[in-house]
Amino acid sequence: MIKVSVLGYGTVGSGVVEIIRENADIITRRAGEEIQVKSVLDLRDFPDDPIQNIIVHDFEEIRKDEEVQIVVETMGGLHPAYEFVKASLESGKSVCTSNKALVADYGPELLEIAQKHNVNFLFEASVGGGIPIIRPLKISLAPDEIMEISGILNGTTNYILTEMTEKGSDFDSVLKEAQDKGYAEKDPTADIEGFDACRKIAILTSLAYGKQLNFEDIYTEGITKITDRDIVYAKKLGAKIKIFGSSKKIGDKVSAMVAPKLITGEHPLYSVDGVFNAILVKGNMVGDVMFYGQGAGKLATASAVVSDVIEEAKHVNVNMRTLWDYEQLDLMPLDEVSFRFFVRVKRGQEIASAVEKAFGHVTPVEAGFTDEFGFVTEKITEKAYEEAAGQVEVINKIRFDS
Amino acid sequence: MIKVSVLGYGTVGSGVVEIIRENADIITRRAGEEIQVKSVLDLRDFPDDPIQNIIVHDFEEIRKDEEVQIVVETMGGLHPAYEFVKASLESGKSVCTSNKALVADYGPELLEIAQKHNVNFLFEASVGGGIPIIRPLKISLAPDEIMEISGILNGTTNYILTEMTEKGSDFDSVLKEAQDKGYAEKDPTADIEGFDACRKIAILTSLAYGKQLNFEDIYTEGITKITDRDIVYAKKLGAKIKIFGSSKKIGDKVSAMVAPKLITGEHPLYSVDGVFNAILVKGNMVGDVMFYGQGAGKLATASAVVSDVIEEAKHVNVNMRTLWDYEQLDLMPLDEVSFRFFVRVKRGQEIASAVEKAFGHVTPVEAGFTDEFGFVTEKITEKAYEEAAGQVEVINKIRFDS
Repeated sequence: MIKVSVLGYGTVGSGVVEIIRENADIITRRAGEEIQVKSVLDLRDFPDDPIQNIIVHDFEEIRKDEEVQIVVETMGGLHPAYEFVKASLESGKSVCTSNKALVADYGPELLEIAQKHNVNFLFEASVGGGIPIIRPLKISLAPDEIMEISGILNGTTNYILTEMTEKGSDFDSVLKEAQDKGYAEKDPTADIEGFDACRKIAILTSLAYGKQLNFEDIYTEGITKITDRDIVYAKKLGAKIKIFGSSKKIGDKVSAMVAPKLITGEHPLYSVDGVFNAILVKGNMVGDVMFYGQGAGKLATASAVVSDVIEEAKHVNVNMRTLWDYEQLDLMPLDEVSFRFFVRVKRGQEIASAVEKAFGHVTPVEAGFTDEFGFVTEKITEKAYEEAAGQVEVINKIRFDS
Repeated sequence: MIKVSVLGYGTVGSGVVEIIRENADIITRRAGEEIQVKSVLDLRDFPDDPIQNIIVHDFEEIRKDEEVQIVVETMGGLHPAYEFVKASLESGKSVCTSNKALVADYGPELLEIAQKHNVNFLFEASVGGGIPIIRPLKISLAPDEIMEISGILNGTTNYILTEMTEKGSDFDSVLKEAQDKGYAEKDPTADIEGFDACRKIAILTSLAYGKQLNFEDIYTEGITKITDRDIVYAKKLGAKIKIFGSSKKIGDKVSAMVAPKLITGEHPLYSVDGVFNAILVKGNMVGDVMFYGQGAGKLATASAVVSDVIEEAKHVNVNMRTLWDYEQLDLMPLDEVSFRFFVRVKRGQEIASAVEKAFGHVTPVEAGFTDEFGFVTEKITEKAYEEAAGQVEVINKIRFDS
């Protein structure tokens, strides 16, 4: 029997306990051994929940418990999650986590500690919720040089953009509705400003190249500037607006960004709507591979955590190499990255001349607004765009995914 | 260094050699060791190919070569592939194969032999070409009871149906064009009659439940009866016709079939067109997960084989449990499985009365044909459908995916 301790009895942690209990037969068959939750760490008590019998308030009890071979970390946040995970690994316990902040910040260090102690640090649930992506990227795509990763990595923002597209509503009212439905947090900043997607693309990109990409170095733009007018233009262009976390190999460097992008019908992620997430990976041999599913939610995310627990149960005291060094990934400066830009400007003779002077001849995109028009640039660098845009008053710009 | 022998220097086999050579640096980093192709078995010679230096014509040379730790089987067909794979495993060599016929027929036996000899029998490339599906099903979805698998598992038929849909062409001319383009074999039987998809869904279903599902027991219907008129009706119904290999848990039994189905825009596989494949898996915890990519092709399939080679290189002399017993899966008789059926019949007062008598009141689906009309049944069992259909002369019927 493999004994597990769960740190944090919140949404995901309680989902982990539920799955291990509900699917016990299947899990035992597949793991080759029974898996039992021996203790749950939480500061709170849960008097009406059978879990109360195994609630522990002091992490030290778990750290010292030699029967516990696997620690599940579902507390979230950096501290004390980092300290607890580190101490668990150093005590010879493997750790399975859903904590993207922890993985993005401390991935290489925790993997190194795990290797040193012949245990594992696993984090399938940290990106894409229930979608298998970490393990496929590490193992299934191992023969391939990864050329590109494009992910709809945040369900809240995908839901908001989908609703704006389908109902023509404005950002604020859709956000409010999403909050009422529980699809968006009371403080939605991490989602709508792209910070959540940023940590996820940092993790995927670091794993793809085996080097550290700091999330702070990734240009990150949320969806708060997207208005109902942008949606009208997008339809006019036969496109949808989706926010991507993406990275791309360009020569010896890698570009990475989080930003809303325009995509047209041929794009494999065009029909990924609502709260769903999807990740497209291009390998130099395998071509395009896409993974789709629920990017969040109690049981979907918990299922990913438990898949790590089962995998770990089959690899007790065997470190499964994960390539992710401290060495910094060579990031291409944003200035040098190229896109086609969709640009909106005010209407007027002077502005039209200024646009032509700055961007060259452009074909106006008309979406029925008397006070403004749009246009699409050639593929130009961010630097060239900024220089040209400095000469006209831009209402908003959105990149085409290219 | 890990030494590999490749059996069969055809499309996939030469792709494996190419990837191991071209992506050598990446593969060495990820496997933790250099991987080298030591010998290639083929009856032919390849005088203009550097491979000629390591061509072997006698399998015994490879079997006896103690340096060879991994055998890649890309010969296809059942014999001598079966004998060579079995002998390789018995000689303590792990085997990675792309051969779906071999896996569907001999999966449990070869897995058992592998386990006995502490080696592995791996077959990621046998289903879905470059799409990671075998490993995600075994590992990532291990916490879940699998409720349903629906796969567009054959690129040739998906291409044909897509072309018929987009161009309104008839089956024969699209098949001919597909053959000219190399998307269909000269003898296309295995693809268009659904035999290829049948073996693939047999493998996926066996793995999902850990018991043997014989492909011969799966009701299999190809796409040869689909006409351009069916496509016109499908459009009228807001649907596309796609051929699925599918299986579904119903109580304690599992239903399985290969057949063309009508799917509408909300279906996650609706936009999977052309030669692409996709597989939707429903878990009882994780919900819907979908995998998409190139289901065939030299380098895509070879990439899947090489992912197995790398995985094996990290598990030398460690058997990775794969649950797939000899025990037969409890298959639900076709008669008891229920669908909504789209049915086409000739026009005429007598026929209309016969339809009403047999199927009850139905709303006609008109697609502009003066000599026939269609209708959609309630959800009824196959048995009920057959009984009713026996009373009217049916031109064609297509199931809705449900």
